[in-house]
Amino acid sequence: MFHHSAKLQYPVKVDKPNPEFAMLLQQAIGGVEGEIRVAMQYFFQAMGARGDDRIRDLLMSTATEELSHIEMLGHAVALNLEGAPVSYQEATAKDPVMNAILGGANPRHILSSGLSAMPVNANGVPFDMSHIYATGNVAADMLANVTAEASGRVLASRLYNWTDDHGMKDFLSFLIARDTYHQQQWLAVIEELGGLGAQLPVPNSTPEDHEAMQHSYYYLNTLLDKEAPKGRWGEGPSFDGRSEFSVQNQPAPEGQEPTLGMAKEKSGAQKEQIDPSK
Amino acid sequence: MFHHSAKLQYPVKVDKPNPEFAMLLQQAIGGVEGEIRVAMQYFFQAMGARGDDRIRDLLMSTATEELSHIEMLGHAVALNLEGAPVSYQEATAKDPVMNAILGGANPRHILSSGLSAMPVNANGVPFDMSHIYATGNVAADMLANVTAEASGRVLASRLYNWTDDHGMKDFLSFLIARDTYHQQQWLAVIEELGGLGAQLPVPNSTPEDHEAMQHSYYYLNTLLDKEAPKGRWGEGPSFDGRSEFSVQNQPAPEGQEPTLGMAKEKSGAQKEQIDPSK
Amino acid sequence: MFHHSAKLQYPVKVDKPNPEFAMLLQQAIGGVEGEIRVAMQYFFQAMGARGDDRIRDLLMSTATEELSHIEMLGHAVALNLEGAPVSYQEATAKDPVMNAILGGANPRHILSSGLSAMPVNANGVPFDMSHIYATGNVAADMLANVTAEASGRVLASRLYNWTDDHGMKDFLSFLIARDTYHQQQWLAVIEELGGLGAQLPVPNSTPEDHEAMQHSYYYLNTLLDKEAPKGRWGEGPSFDGRSEFSVQNQPAPEGQEPTLGMAKEKSGAQKEQIDPSK
Amino acid sequence: MFHHSAKLQYPVKVDKPNPEFAMLLQQAIGGVEGEIRVAMQYFFQAMGARGDDRIRDLLMSTATEELSHIEMLGHAVALNLEGAPVSYQEATAKDPVMNAILGGANPRHILSSGLSAMPVNANGVPFDMSHIYATGNVAADMLANVTAEASGRVLASRLYNWTDDHGMKDFLSFLIARDTYHQQQWLAVIEELGGLGAQLPVPNSTPEDHEAMQHSYYYLNTLLDKEAPKGRWGEGPSFDGRSEFSVQNQPAPEGQEPTLGMAKEKSGAQKEQIDPSK
Amino acid sequence: MFHHSAKLQYPVKVDKPNPEFAMLLQQAIGGVEGEIRVAMQYFFQAMGARGDDRIRDLLMSTATEELSHIEMLGHAVALNLEGAPVSYQEATAKDPVMNAILGGANPRHILSSGLSAMPVNANGVPFDMSHIYATGNVAADMLANVTAEASGRVLASRLYNWTDDHGMKDFLSFLIARDTYHQQQWLAVIEELGGLGAQLPVPNSTPEDHEAMQHSYYYLNTLLDKEAPKGRWGEGPSFDGRSEFSVQNQPAPEGQEPTLGMAKEKSGAQKEQIDPSK
Amino acid sequence: MFHHSAKLQYPVKVDKPNPEFAMLLQQAIGGVEGEIRVAMQYFFQAMGARGDDRIRDLLMSTATEELSHIEMLGHAVALNLEGAPVSYQEATAKDPVMNAILGGANPRHILSSGLSAMPVNANGVPFDMSHIYATGNVAADMLANVTAEASGRVLASRLYNWTDDHGMKDFLSFLIARDTYHQQQWLAVIEELGGLGAQLPVPNSTPEDHEAMQHSYYYLNTLLDKEAPKGRWGEGPSFDGRSEFSVQNQPAPEGQEPTLGMAKEKSGAQKEQIDPSK
Repeated sequence: MFHHSAKLQYPVKVDKPNPEFAMLLQQAIGGVEGEIRVAMQYFFQAMGARGDDRIRDLLMSTATEELSHIEMLGHAVALNLEGAPVSYQEATAKDPVMNAILGGANPRHILSSGLSAMPVNANGVPFDMSHIYATGNVAADMLANVTAEASGRVLASRLYNWTDDHGMKDFLSFLIARDTYHQQQWLAVIEELGGLGAQLPVPNSTPEDHEAMQHSYYYLNTLLDKEAPKGRWGEGPSFDGRSEFSVQNQPAPEGQEPTLGMAKEKSGAQKEQIDPSK
Repeated sequence: MFHHSAKLQYPVKVDKPNPEFAMLLQQAIGGVEGEIRVAMQYFFQAMGARGDDRIRDLLMSTATEELSHIEMLGHAVALNLEGAPVSYQEATAKDPVMNAILGGANPRHILSSGLSAMPVNANGVPFDMSHIYATGNVAADMLANVTAEASGRVLASRLYNWTDDHGMKDFLSFLIARDTYHQQQWLAVIEELGGLGAQLPVPNSTPEDHEAMQHSYYYLNTLLDKEAPKGRWGEGPSFDGRSEFSVQNQPAPEGQEPTLGMAKEKSGAQKEQIDPSK
Repeated sequence: MFHHSAKLQYPVKVDKPNPEFAMLLQQAIGGVEGEIRVAMQYFFQAMGARGDDRIRDLLMSTATEELSHIEMLGHAVALNLEGAPVSYQEATAKDPVMNAILGGANPRHILSSGLSAMPVNANGVPFDMSHIYATGNVAADMLANVTAEASGRVLASRLYNWTDDHGMKDFLSFLIARDTYHQQQWLAVIEELGGLGAQLPVPNSTPEDHEAMQHSYYYLNTLLDKEAPKGRWGEGPSFDGRSEFSVQNQPAPEGQEPTLGMAKEKSGAQKEQIDPSK
Repeated sequence: MFHHSAKLQYPVKVDKPNPEFAMLLQQAIGGVEGEIRVAMQYFFQAMGARGDDRIRDLLMSTATEELSHIEMLGHAVALNLEGAPVSYQEATAKDPVMNAILGGANPRHILSSGLSAMPVNANGVPFDMSHIYATGNVAADMLANVTAEASGRVLASRLYNWTDDHGMKDFLSFLIARDTYHQQQWLAVIEELGGLGAQLPVPNSTPEDHEAMQHSYYYLNTLLDKEAPKGRWGEGPSFDGRSEFSVQNQPAPEGQEPTLGMAKEKSGAQKEQIDPSK
Repeated sequence: MFHHSAKLQYPVKVDKPNPEFAMLLQQAIGGVEGEIRVAMQYFFQAMGARGDDRIRDLLMSTATEELSHIEMLGHAVALNLEGAPVSYQEATAKDPVMNAILGGANPRHILSSGLSAMPVNANGVPFDMSHIYATGNVAADMLANVTAEASGRVLASRLYNWTDDHGMKDFLSFLIARDTYHQQQWLAVIEELGGLGAQLPVPNSTPEDHEAMQHSYYYLNTLLDKEAPKGRWGEGPSFDGRSEFSVQNQPAPEGQEPTLGMAKEKSGAQKEQIDPSK
Repeated sequence: MFHHSAKLQYPVKVDKPNPEFAMLLQQAIGGVEGEIRVAMQYFFQAMGARGDDRIRDLLMSTATEELSHIEMLGHAVALNLEGAPVSYQEATAKDPVMNAILGGANPRHILSSGLSAMPVNANGVPFDMSHIYATGNVAADMLANVTAEASGRVLASRLYNWTDDHGMKDFLSFLIARDTYHQQQWLAVIEELGGLGAQLPVPNSTPEDHEAMQHSYYYLNTLLDKEAPKGRWGEGPSFDGRSEFSVQNQPAPEGQEPTLGMAKEKSGAQKEQIDPSK
């Protein structure tokens, strides 16, 4: 069950409101690298967690923290929209040259939300819950979480670089720090499970006779006019300890030429496609 | 530039066509764990790759292989739909008890595609390109790729378990094998870059003074009625070598109570919300 | 800032797991009538609330409760999937006649989530955050909230009717009760603001000279072959106290016939559409 | 059956074309507050209306009027795009300083639609029919309709404030007027059904023994550090006449701690999650 | 301006209600081959039509007819849902063996719409207005319309084959007939414009010096292991009368190997990707 | 099976990088008129092609070419973003007046992709695979392909007009040329099948007794206040050779007034809608 404190997790200040930065911050709320995504991803993973109960608790606890990050970002967007023009008079008074041009701002901050945050990204595209990755496989989920925190910290760093507002820089430095930790928190779960090697290949519960293992350890170079690049992917022991990596250059197809023959009657094809005997 | 051989990468046979399994296989084509996703993800990462050119070649070469996987799966779907009923007469002849009930099949395989594959998942939801993760940051991208291959192999294993068709089992064992390799191929890139530790925190180019490092290494336990679970996430050196992990139980908010005050005139709010002085 | 208790808001029991009911319950999680929607809608309204601070607190507090409803429903879905078949052997052992047909279940509960809840509706369509209605206008928002709780209680009642599981009926009777209250909670806010009449027309801050008031109070009957139905919409005082309702039968257009003339050069039209003088 | 007059419902004039305003007007066509939404919502509600046939006629008649609003808005968009630049020469001739920068315009008005309206919102996001709310429950539907007209009038007022074009202001004042009426038209239906009190809780056909009524009338304050705000939601008779409102401060969870135990074999989990006995 | 008659364009009868067929009919309402699509496509094309005003009138008039088709299909769906079970008792009474299994029906017809039509396809996926193709180029639009009517008639024929209900067959034979005409109606517009040859290449207003015409008339065979198939695409005069078709077998790339070099500082890349001099 | 050459199909140069043009080019990658669409459409049509195998080869070969077009466009986007500002200092150094305003650029090129292409359109909306039209009917598919190439060439021409960059103009002239050919390539398939007349009505395999042919050849003028426009659609032989076109002015409805009567008990309707006898 969830509870709420009226105060924010960390102070959020804006020195100089900037509607364009409000638009950019939306990526951290409703973008695929954003906080709705991690909050909901950890929440759904927690609700499906099987096995070690400590991991379920970590997931639910961190989902809860990420909800608090949405809350701070929502406030940051509203503060950046404070004083934004809402009428022709205001807009032209502010910047007569621009003649009411919205520039880089999100027009729906004015038209739709009344100068506050929306669950959309920096292009105004709403967040779509298909981005919640929760497979029921703990290793796949932990990797998805490290990935989400990695792209999240990339985004927070880019936002930091784009602003010169001290309040916003301070707030973003907090988000950058928490993303630093969360990347490693999920890697720590993998370490608790015996380390990445022991988890590979994911799922490690697939019996070996379900796998055509002669195809499990070569790099397939499909480039016609270049040799395979040399590197660890083509030599040395595999990370799961079962084999050696190798390279297969300019592979030939092993399968058949696919053909479906004629269409059935009543299948909605053209007469020319139909075999009357089928 | 792309080229094509008329033959498939690997043989695809179906012993006994099964429209329900055709519906399930769609997840491997148009699902978020599927092959359109990895093909396009590696393709877009390749087109944005900066730095070591070997990684761009790996990405483009593997994107090309994944396109061949879509092709095999598309053929597998069509073969499973071979002979499926397309009219009331056929449907009821097949199974008079069912009285033309479609059961677990995808009705659009009959209504929309003429008994062949579609770029949709097992629920019939079309694939959406927002799932192509390509950040321009090589570590974030490699982690995204390991994740995609992990969930892909989980899916292929589940499909393998669900069928008793020998042709399909053979084909899926090939996909399982390639997913085994590709998981490790992307980890091999990270090893070439100096190992995961050297890449953390992602992005490792963010200057330390952009980060509130006092918040970078503690696990925040937001659970009110349980202690933080004990584990590697709460003790020992951080994986980036910069600090030690610790735990913060039952944290208190550090920020302000957010308030936006009254609305502006002409902002579309109700009169009761408006401060006439603004 | 959010916090979490490890226990559920209300007990969730399932007497006899049923994968089909798991699929139906998804509508209450990821459907437009579901709990993600209300949780996020109240959360975003709270973050944009201006005026009376009590309303912001109500919104955030209730958003928090709705998060707890998602949590219970997620657990209910997982319990209904307990013991569902995951392999051909199990599926055919359970019901040899069905021959592994998935029937009414969601195949992605097996293929994608590992027998747990997903943020999708009963058709497997992911929830899309464009359904979060938060306008910054308190009356429009409260009406949206009453609407959401009304369709939510309709859904919960339909789910109640569809199951005969005592555990599920008990749980749904709790959700039905909370929806009863929340419908009236948001109406209570409108009463605090002076009642619905005082809030009409929404927004009540629009000056009267922005409105062609001669068009504000008649019912327009666009049906060619029927008189306007008689009722309160066509007679009596308007609810905002400004006028009387009336009826306009078989209205004639008042505007011009629209025509755009020829296309510009270089606009990508066909030659036949282009006026070379433009 | 539908019919059409060649003329518009109301005159649409633009004094000074403005591509930015064309972009903003799109919100009133393809936004969730827009006219496609209400036209289609009333249409689908009409097609599913059961009970009093007058309500079906109202719904279909008003759906028809809203189609005419789409038509006017589409013409308004095209008129605002009249003369917009379509080539580098034109763009730079118009505004050499801007050097062909599109500013706040929608680039797809040039690239995709040939200077005319599209079924998208002000961010260029296409309208999605999941926003058509039609539950088959007349009270839920009427509330959804009042909501739609409320947010529609908020939007029209914001557009009115943003423009100084006399033609556009006149046209928008007509839309504002019709939204005034339609808000009250749907409330009039509720009055015909006996008033809002008689319709509560929605659905009013749910038997009382399907409802855990001990949970139906209290406000649940989930805020840890604030008392519940005082107001009508916490005291006085409920609006459905069945009880009294009360407040429950700082509630404790009543349910169990959810746990799913170990995963099944063949379910695609990691070995570490699997209980071999299941 | 639109108007409405209370009666349907054509009689719609259902002899034996069938919830599965209700689900299939949804494809004709909310599928990409369906009636919402053509109604809205012709409507938006009409609103952007430039040049010959007769074409605008055809578009608007046919958009209006297609709205009437949505209306009939909506009624057909509701009639097929007449008497469908809405409770466990009913469902099990009807078919005790099935034990309340929904089979091929759309569960949201019960849960969400109250046994009536929704703007979704046969998978329950909502229609998305990005499918409205309206380019402002009359030839491209007419081709899009012929395409839409072709796939629409394929769908209607498949639905006809799937049912044995006389009422439904009669109704579908009407839709099939109208699709027959509409395919040719749009081709007739092309004939009025001088025939397809005169319209090619679309847009025919592009100056020849905007086109690398040496690349405009050869078939490029990218298949490595097969000769180009022989046919009209590789020989004979081009349909636009400007050249002859030819074949280019196994083409070599003409462009450069793309490389982006190192990343910029502050671009969010990893250190290893960054060139400090940029 | 697919293969790849490291070089591009055609040289791609940018004389003067322009982030706004990068944003516009996205329409040719991820727009409905773009190259992902045609690549995937031809690919899925090929995988479902029945009948003449030459057509399957054409489809797969051209799908492969279109993948190479995506690749070139992706590089063009990255080259146009070369040197774009990524920090406040850079942005303001470039254009102090603009004060870091993003203007017409796509902010996600900076925030999300690290200055490279994304699978989105010019509004930043991701491509959605529901736009892959592949019906299994060869005539419907060929028409869809001509349509796609027509709108593709319209788009390429508009992009050509919008830029003054010589490199980009050269590249776009190549795309314009290939679209010229591909429009006619698909028409050539129709000619090989006997010409368009022989293919009409699509599907030409529908038996005549499935069609209410008395409704197959008239233009229905639903405009109340205008006569039907005169033209080929209303007179002369039908293109399928079966009849003559005619006109039906101001048609009257032939069907019944639809009514659904009262709702069932337990269907979730309001009491006022329910017939207790049902």
